[in-house]
Amino acid sequence: MTIVTLISDWGMNSHYQAAVKGSILRQIPGVNIVDITHTLRPFDIMNCSFILGNAYPDFPKGTIHIIGVNTEASTKTPHIVVKYNDMFFIGADNGVMSLLFDEKPYEAIELDIMQDSDYFTFSSRDVFVKAASLIASGKALNELGAGYTTLNRMYAFKPVVTDDKIEGKVIFIDDYENVFVNIDHATFRKVGRGRPYTINFRVPGYAIRTLHTSYSDVPEGEKLALFGSTGFLEIAMNKGKASSLLGLGLTNTVTILFES
Amino acid sequence: MTIVTLISDWGMNSHYQAAVKGSILRQIPGVNIVDITHTLRPFDIMNCSFILGNAYPDFPKGTIHIIGVNTEASTKTPHIVVKYNDMFFIGADNGVMSLLFDEKPYEAIELDIMQDSDYFTFSSRDVFVKAASLIASGKALNELGAGYTTLNRMYAFKPVVTDDKIEGKVIFIDDYENVFVNIDHATFRKVGRGRPYTINFRVPGYAIRTLHTSYSDVPEGEKLALFGSTGFLEIAMNKGKASSLLGLGLTNTVTILFES
Amino acid sequence: MTIVTLISDWGMNSHYQAAVKGSILRQIPGVNIVDITHTLRPFDIMNCSFILGNAYPDFPKGTIHIIGVNTEASTKTPHIVVKYNDMFFIGADNGVMSLLFDEKPYEAIELDIMQDSDYFTFSSRDVFVKAASLIASGKALNELGAGYTTLNRMYAFKPVVTDDKIEGKVIFIDDYENVFVNIDHATFRKVGRGRPYTINFRVPGYAIRTLHTSYSDVPEGEKLALFGSTGFLEIAMNKGKASSLLGLGLTNTVTILFES
Repeated sequence: MTIVTLISDWGMNSHYQAAVKGSILRQIPGVNIVDITHTLRPFDIMNCSFILGNAYPDFPKGTIHIIGVNTEASTKTPHIVVKYNDMFFIGADNGVMSLLFDEKPYEAIELDIMQDSDYFTFSSRDVFVKAASLIASGKALNELGAGYTTLNRMYAFKPVVTDDKIEGKVIFIDDYENVFVNIDHATFRKVGRGRPYTINFRVPGYAIRTLHTSYSDVPEGEKLALFGSTGFLEIAMNKGKASSLLGLGLTNTVTILFES
Repeated sequence: MTIVTLISDWGMNSHYQAAVKGSILRQIPGVNIVDITHTLRPFDIMNCSFILGNAYPDFPKGTIHIIGVNTEASTKTPHIVVKYNDMFFIGADNGVMSLLFDEKPYEAIELDIMQDSDYFTFSSRDVFVKAASLIASGKALNELGAGYTTLNRMYAFKPVVTDDKIEGKVIFIDDYENVFVNIDHATFRKVGRGRPYTINFRVPGYAIRTLHTSYSDVPEGEKLALFGSTGFLEIAMNKGKASSLLGLGLTNTVTILFES
Repeated sequence: MTIVTLISDWGMNSHYQAAVKGSILRQIPGVNIVDITHTLRPFDIMNCSFILGNAYPDFPKGTIHIIGVNTEASTKTPHIVVKYNDMFFIGADNGVMSLLFDEKPYEAIELDIMQDSDYFTFSSRDVFVKAASLIASGKALNELGAGYTTLNRMYAFKPVVTDDKIEGKVIFIDDYENVFVNIDHATFRKVGRGRPYTINFRVPGYAIRTLHTSYSDVPEGEKLALFGSTGFLEIAMNKGKASSLLGLGLTNTVTILFES
């Protein structure tokens, strides 16, 4: 059974996602369609890469992911298909692919699908679904278009690292208001080398000096830090809303200081 | 594989849509259920017809669409099934069907399904799913009830057309805040006959004198007009929120003036 | 075909629900996944039990329900599977199971599934899906863990009943703003014995003295009371927002006085 996922900023209150699903069902009978989310912040490639990047590894091999964000093709941002780890990612090369795959051994092609009309087209429905149906029917990637070597590069915020300090930024906030920081566990261990540390953000009094492994390690309403299931540092509150209660928003700075 | 779609104003925060889906799965094993949307503006037939009308044409023949808006049956608004273009539409005849099909060659029957109880019933779950399962099992439409000839008519706003002017109204706003006006491309071409035009709305300074074919034809944050994938005139901003930034809300007037 | 439902407070704007779905699709090929809702009020077991309790009875036998709320396991709240009425409910024993099944003839086991890592785990994805796949593959419940006899008890608000009075509380408000009160039809009939009654809430002038059987039994915008499809007393307005317009919120009191 073919699995096609959809991720987009179309929202839930219009016809876009249903039109794409109808089109998929018409072209790939028996398909199983899964919504990743349709409420990405509009036009936000970073938001898309965080959510898709944390969801796609759980899907079975062969899954086809359609990325419905900033899909207008141009000579600078062509429609492409990236094959990585036996999954397929269809979208415009608007930077999101580089955030997902830049340093990984991917294959890619530029889609060679004629549009049916000169008028405005809805790329996800009119182009990406056609590509998905060709892949689902067993066509090889190189039958869909010419090889595509260099992804348009968008740079994710990287933490700034010195001997005794990692300075990161908030890159995602979930619906619980848990705050995700672009510092991964490997970097933390490498820089920290087991030394005591202080995690600081905004008001100094909010410093955290311990990492936990689950939210309920602290009493309800108390703040904590952990490396959660995404691998990134998470500032959270046990059953509380960390982002608004700690005043930590997107792109805010979080610093880890190690004792020297 | 049977495909059943659902469109409703039930919202996402209660048991309604899940109860209907459970009931569908119990009565139509192996069915593929697709949500069109469940966040229609409550009781809003116009909103429903716009979204369903722009989504259903993409679905495969044989698809069964359940319309869960204003579903209480009465002698004036019976439960009906409309067959159009080899698809089935199940709902109450509350006006939405006329918005979708009035001038098209449809077939219709009045549903003759006994309710199981005298108490309050949830029509979508208790009546429409039963109708869907009968259709899915291969029953002919006339086995579900007597022929039904005249749909209850609800009138969509129509643009007012004179020699040099088309006066339309905003009929839909999507989650990007693109604004959809009830002026279609055919009417525009017929009235305009290639003449220069000015699209006016609210503040005169906002006039638009060119149609584009994609959002990115103008710089980011700039307004534009286009005939998009729905066929209707769309006032939008490239990566901006046209509705709030231009002050254009539902039922507001948009006028196209042609040079005489 | 295996059916797995998901109910959670993960929200719609992050990767959680997609990661769980990917994992289910990887472990149970051909599965049909249904979302009950993902916008439960965070950590709210009562909200979860109301919605799941009103949705699960419509699903086919064999359905597996994954409950993704307050899922952190502890010695006090182990991960369990409850089998009731030939359906399976997987979650932490945090009280929600007792709200659903306490007085029913259920079977239960404590899940004996080793976690793959010492790090933070996402129980729904890492434990519950594995349990679901074992059940889907035909394993008997007792192969998944040892018998589990006593559910952690959480008490639902019960109405206070005297000879001439039932005093209930608002337990749920749907997206239409219909207000659900924890007074069921059986209790109403037993206490009332056919006597005239007055339903009171907040302002005395809002008293209701008649029960209706459908919203449209009263003119648009008028308040009414009915025993709806959940079996609970519902205070509603025909096409109006009862909760905000009548000032009736969660846990507010609603009283039925019978003439003595």
